[in-house]
Amino acid sequence: MIIVSKNNPLVKELSALKEKKFREKNGCFLVEGEKMVRECVKSGLKIRRLIMRDDYTGKEYGFDTVILGADAFRCVCDEKTPQGIAAEVEIPRQILRKPQKPCLILDGVSDPANVGAIIRTAVAAGYSEIYCISCADPYSPKSVRASMSGVFFANIMQGTHDEILSALQGVSFIAADMDGENVFQFTPPELFALCIGNEGRGLSEEIFSRADHTVKIPMGYQTESLNAAVSAGILMYQLKKTEMLKRS
Amino acid sequence: MIIVSKNNPLVKELSALKEKKFREKNGCFLVEGEKMVRECVKSGLKIRRLIMRDDYTGKEYGFDTVILGADAFRCVCDEKTPQGIAAEVEIPRQILRKPQKPCLILDGVSDPANVGAIIRTAVAAGYSEIYCISCADPYSPKSVRASMSGVFFANIMQGTHDEILSALQGVSFIAADMDGENVFQFTPPELFALCIGNEGRGLSEEIFSRADHTVKIPMGYQTESLNAAVSAGILMYQLKKTEMLKRS
Repeated sequence: MIIVSKNNPLVKELSALKEKKFREKNGCFLVEGEKMVRECVKSGLKIRRLIMRDDYTGKEYGFDTVILGADAFRCVCDEKTPQGIAAEVEIPRQILRKPQKPCLILDGVSDPANVGAIIRTAVAAGYSEIYCISCADPYSPKSVRASMSGVFFANIMQGTHDEILSALQGVSFIAADMDGENVFQFTPPELFALCIGNEGRGLSEEIFSRADHTVKIPMGYQTESLNAAVSAGILMYQLKKTEMLKRS
Repeated sequence: MIIVSKNNPLVKELSALKEKKFREKNGCFLVEGEKMVRECVKSGLKIRRLIMRDDYTGKEYGFDTVILGADAFRCVCDEKTPQGIAAEVEIPRQILRKPQKPCLILDGVSDPANVGAIIRTAVAAGYSEIYCISCADPYSPKSVRASMSGVFFANIMQGTHDEILSALQGVSFIAADMDGENVFQFTPPELFALCIGNEGRGLSEEIFSRADHTVKIPMGYQTESLNAAVSAGILMYQLKKTEMLKRS
């Protein structure tokens, strides 16, 4: 059966996944496009249902599937030119716990595209444990898209300052800061949390005052700062330079 | 005198600076907001005129100034919540020439936010000579904003593949490529051009086939690629690690 009406209750429910409060209520988020759905299936996240446009002829996966007419499908999707397949996927609920290896704290990063791009880099560089405090929702369509498939493979833990400070007791905090030590001269401890702050304000006082080390990226005098995702990427890789040197 | 009408010819002319063809015809681009205008003045770029909203009370600079009513000002600006000051600035016309130090080739980078963020990082890392081939226009409002003040301080040269290949004879080309050498193990020559390709397609055949070296950023197996601005940032800094190590 093909659902054509945008007013169908299921279409309305799926369409609401674009909003954070409905994602939280429903425990699900939306994954759009062939490649992203394929990666999501590969990651092992729990797919509640696939959503296909009636003219979709690509790969099928054997999950519960709902077929929508073009208008209804467009209404569910966030992409401007949707590809004909999407998935309703359960948000993996991670219990707050101490990291096993170098990890990331995102402290008030507010642009969903930055949150997504940082998660993408974090998975690439092996910072798969990511602690988010008051950030843009990693499961928003924009962030999921910018993360490519990063959100499927990262362990994203959310909490308040107090909860995260308490879960990370004993872990060295490294804060990005303009007055810090040149990161190219810095040797990090074995286990650390790299702390990335808000695009404009930087780190919160709670996290900054807890930092064991501060590091900076050296910059020409005309530049005050870099894009948050760019500087997070440079720092993540530089802090693991010893490991990166050994990779093939 | 305050211009209030959106149909005033000057308002129309300024508003057209949001489009590339009018920027080219006019030889000017738009700079928006207090901080950006301040940096632009500092950079020494030629400011043709300042544009102020009638309620603007911030710093003035002694340039030719036009005062607009709120509606006309909003019409000229690209920002959703404009700050009350903008500037019409001459696009610096750079003659294509051989670089003096490590430089950047942007080959088909199509997202203006990426072009801007890459220019921002390039100025910070000292790659101030930037060669653009078929990229999103660096002088679009989105790119200017994402570059922060980067576009004011960079030497941006535009040209075709042939023109740029010919201007850069004798310079080593380093191409970002998934099958390249681990950039953390790589030592670049003294003078090189780092080549960054399109977000989806990568480098053009013309540039890729000219590359003397290919380098990659090591990545976990779940990740295929990084955001273009992030990977450009990591590569720019890593290729200058010897210089970065010496900075205070």
